[in-house]
Amino acid sequence: MPSYKAPVDEMMFLLRDVLDVRSVFADMPEQADTDEDTIQSVLEEAGRFCSDILYPLNMTGDVEGCRLENGAVITPKGFAAAYHAFSEAGWGGLSASPDYGGQGLPRTIQILVDEMLSASNLSFGLFPGLTRGAVETIEAHATDNLKTLYLPKMIAGTWTGAMALTESNAGSDLGLLKTTAKPRDDGSYTITGTKIFISSGDHDMAENVIHLVLARLPDAPAGTKGISLFLCPKFLVRGDGKPGVHNNISVGALEHKMGIHAQPTCVMNYDGSQGWLIGTPHRGLAAMFTMMNAERLFVGVQGLGVADASYQTAATYALERLQGRAPNSNTTSPIIAHPDVRRMLLSMRAFIEAGRALTLFTALEMDKEKFHPDPAMRHAAAGLVALLTPVIKAALTDFGFEATVQGQQVLGGHGYIREWGQEQYVRDARIAMIYEGTNGIQAQDLVLRKLTLDDGQPVAHLFGLIRKTLNTAEPVPELASIRHAVQNAFTHLETVTKRLTDGDLSSTEERNAAAVDYLRLFALTCFGWLWLKMTLATRDNSDQAIRKLATAQFFADRILPQTASLASQIGTGSAAIMALPAELF
Amino acid sequence: MPSYKAPVDEMMFLLRDVLDVRSVFADMPEQADTDEDTIQSVLEEAGRFCSDILYPLNMTGDVEGCRLENGAVITPKGFAAAYHAFSEAGWGGLSASPDYGGQGLPRTIQILVDEMLSASNLSFGLFPGLTRGAVETIEAHATDNLKTLYLPKMIAGTWTGAMALTESNAGSDLGLLKTTAKPRDDGSYTITGTKIFISSGDHDMAENVIHLVLARLPDAPAGTKGISLFLCPKFLVRGDGKPGVHNNISVGALEHKMGIHAQPTCVMNYDGSQGWLIGTPHRGLAAMFTMMNAERLFVGVQGLGVADASYQTAATYALERLQGRAPNSNTTSPIIAHPDVRRMLLSMRAFIEAGRALTLFTALEMDKEKFHPDPAMRHAAAGLVALLTPVIKAALTDFGFEATVQGQQVLGGHGYIREWGQEQYVRDARIAMIYEGTNGIQAQDLVLRKLTLDDGQPVAHLFGLIRKTLNTAEPVPELASIRHAVQNAFTHLETVTKRLTDGDLSSTEERNAAAVDYLRLFALTCFGWLWLKMTLATRDNSDQAIRKLATAQFFADRILPQTASLASQIGTGSAAIMALPAELF
Repeated sequence: MPSYKAPVDEMMFLLRDVLDVRSVFADMPEQADTDEDTIQSVLEEAGRFCSDILYPLNMTGDVEGCRLENGAVITPKGFAAAYHAFSEAGWGGLSASPDYGGQGLPRTIQILVDEMLSASNLSFGLFPGLTRGAVETIEAHATDNLKTLYLPKMIAGTWTGAMALTESNAGSDLGLLKTTAKPRDDGSYTITGTKIFISSGDHDMAENVIHLVLARLPDAPAGTKGISLFLCPKFLVRGDGKPGVHNNISVGALEHKMGIHAQPTCVMNYDGSQGWLIGTPHRGLAAMFTMMNAERLFVGVQGLGVADASYQTAATYALERLQGRAPNSNTTSPIIAHPDVRRMLLSMRAFIEAGRALTLFTALEMDKEKFHPDPAMRHAAAGLVALLTPVIKAALTDFGFEATVQGQQVLGGHGYIREWGQEQYVRDARIAMIYEGTNGIQAQDLVLRKLTLDDGQPVAHLFGLIRKTLNTAEPVPELASIRHAVQNAFTHLETVTKRLTDGDLSSTEERNAAAVDYLRLFALTCFGWLWLKMTLATRDNSDQAIRKLATAQFFADRILPQTASLASQIGTGSAAIMALPAELF
Repeated sequence: MPSYKAPVDEMMFLLRDVLDVRSVFADMPEQADTDEDTIQSVLEEAGRFCSDILYPLNMTGDVEGCRLENGAVITPKGFAAAYHAFSEAGWGGLSASPDYGGQGLPRTIQILVDEMLSASNLSFGLFPGLTRGAVETIEAHATDNLKTLYLPKMIAGTWTGAMALTESNAGSDLGLLKTTAKPRDDGSYTITGTKIFISSGDHDMAENVIHLVLARLPDAPAGTKGISLFLCPKFLVRGDGKPGVHNNISVGALEHKMGIHAQPTCVMNYDGSQGWLIGTPHRGLAAMFTMMNAERLFVGVQGLGVADASYQTAATYALERLQGRAPNSNTTSPIIAHPDVRRMLLSMRAFIEAGRALTLFTALEMDKEKFHPDPAMRHAAAGLVALLTPVIKAALTDFGFEATVQGQQVLGGHGYIREWGQEQYVRDARIAMIYEGTNGIQAQDLVLRKLTLDDGQPVAHLFGLIRKTLNTAEPVPELASIRHAVQNAFTHLETVTKRLTDGDLSSTEERNAAAVDYLRLFALTCFGWLWLKMTLATRDNSDQAIRKLATAQFFADRILPQTASLASQIGTGSAAIMALPAELF
């Protein structure tokens, strides 16, 4: 039967041998104590919690789902107890500010724990994930009074957070939203409106739910420049800091979803609820963007985590399941002997390991952005984070979903039924391509904004790093063919990037048409670069080195050639996309 | 709200303008009366039935699902009544032999009706689909006595069929199956064993279920050459032809599946059930293969049908949903104005229309194989059918699934919830990549058997047809760039085919490793060929012509370049796939 084991060795290999986090953290006064032993013990402890407590609730939570009874959401059996254990162990405050009771660990560690949470129980992982997003927004933009009142409870996990953005007619285009906020005499506001798709909107696991709600003030300009952000607790907080009277926030319905059934996705009604402004009037979207990079990195990691869980089951099954004969064999073989089964497993591995490397590379840049004493380092890191965020969000969830589909295929008919859990991973992974900005929106963000950000410095910086690794690998004979494939991919990426930023494909329409293929080309090239970095870091005869070299070679031979066709596809331009009149679709 | 309309105009365009079925049927005495008016009225009538009766039951059937009560399967509300209406209208016997009450229409028409059934209600469509498979097997291999007893009732839909092949340890490798058959004194057999994943294994829609069961005789050799086929009715048939006593066939459980919830997929127990041999002892697999081509074509069409249903909803939504501003626009636009949304819709269309063309081309070859008076024509047609069957089964279900994922993405968050039906299409389409031989198995069939079938005549025949179309298109200036893209793809396909059949990639291991990528390359090239044929057939200023030219250009520009990278990937060989020791996965 399937199980999940957190890949702590893989994670430590990346932190120690590929990214050398020890020396990076050594430059940051606030992280100077974060040594490898500390990291490893945190990861091992988190891995045990995920395997022992959260993973066993994953399938039962899917089958039971959440339900709405008398206006209140009931989560599946075992979730509330698991959440209390999670909060008591302090996992909710891992990377939160010590000023409000957090442990202040770096994003690099947080994101690895997020991967484990996503792999073992995505529905569960969203509760603390959304709380953290709310915490980071409040910390960056709210008044000290609100911070003191809300942050300690949220960081402790006593209260959870929810993000109330989407309305039925305002999804990708938040400028269309209609929820209103009217000022009261006491400086607070009255919030009225209906929101949809609100994750963790209500539940029975914590004593209060703190909603961050986007709404319009009476004098708000139309569109995205007239949206403000408000804090609306489910229960108003009394003078003694305890939850008091109900704040007229109600659950209109639970959405019937394809997956993440144990996560209550709510239609929420705010019927004259009391709220407090966070940040500047009409600048609510900007305040939300503070935590957007972190949230999008988290969503990318969801795709990665679920893919790894699916891989673990598929690999176990392939080693045990006897069916057919391998080429040149006379006896029934475990299916891992069949080249096509290996192809599927290697495709999954090749993505998962490179995806994890890209995530960690980016998380470490986030840590530099936050903790590094040198402003120039912080600025450069911020640029890389801004550039890579949409790539990670979209590519890790696209490839992650594709990996779960392959992990299901390895099991044949047994992958289509509930028993082995593979079909749930496909259904759960699918949401990550949609929420927190669809992957199409991410691609637009990359091509229309991030490529030209800061006069193109971030992309030049990244390309410089890729070139450096290509140079380092040049004298290594056993990496020659991998290096060659990465060099080809990189040449395609550079050429297309130039055409999109100041060449024949730089109009808005062309860039929009190119965006999704371009993001895929960008991500595959980054994966190639990181495969080269990983193989450079493991040049001995260990199992680890054999595994890395074989998987890197597979990636170079069987996946990286896609960059050539992506470059061709983009190169033909938007004409074929725009030719058909809308009414003929 | 979503709906489904059978694309009868598209179907008639293919039949009339691309394939010229009228003149093909004119050569076949048994089909000489099948004229275009007849075909069109059959298709329109079938389309109405699917839209009005089956489509409205699709989502309710998914939500309610089947259940097992006191050992009997209860299908969702409305299914039994719909099935009776379906049978009364004679839809179950459309292409069945007139000798047993069928209408004897060609496969070409049957497969179009199958597409509509799959699009409007896949779970429902499997009931008559499996019955037809059983009918064709019985007709080809059973004794006259069995034929007379069973075929009229099955063709009328009074009884349904089920195929009992898989066991828990024998899926892709049927040679491992353990169900036994012991001879009785009266010439029948006693069948004992347990089968899993049995579609339509039991239900409440018809008065009897006729199981075709694979089992081993006492003296059977091991492996696939010791499997025999038996007919086992749920109720033994009395002397008057009515169902009599129960035959010890029971439902062990209903599988909990990702999708097709309204289709009862059963664990079936045969506890000393009485069965009758079909065909020769130990040659049961060969008897099953009779109907395999037709079944696999049907499964391919399931992928196509569900993709079209998803497209119809996605296109409707994209024309209505206002969100964001198109490039160069100042007002909120329907999302079809966004290039990336068009890209998704065009990808779906480009696949669906070419997939339908390939299906019809192949179905027409099946009709030639069956009805043509010239043995040489029958032989050539049989070769093309054998070659294209695995391509259609795998490519139409792979691309079909990918299309439903895109159709879901077009709707954003609304695609992830039940309301619009898009997430059900993804879940339902997923099974077609697995059953009736996984798509990996199909690719093996293509590369290991079909390429070298009949000394390679079928593949040479097909390549000749492609070359002919390329020549026809050569003088047409407006098709130049499409033709160029198809020529490139075809060159890749020819080169790789040569390497696989008698070049450096012709070992079993190499072919196994190449198979899935090769099948995709093969299918994309066929799609390109058929896009060229379709554009050649519509050179006027009609909406149809505009649509075909724009979609063909999109396919040539944005999808066909994938053939280059597939050729590269295959060209690197199996080394990278085989390098990693099994225990390091």
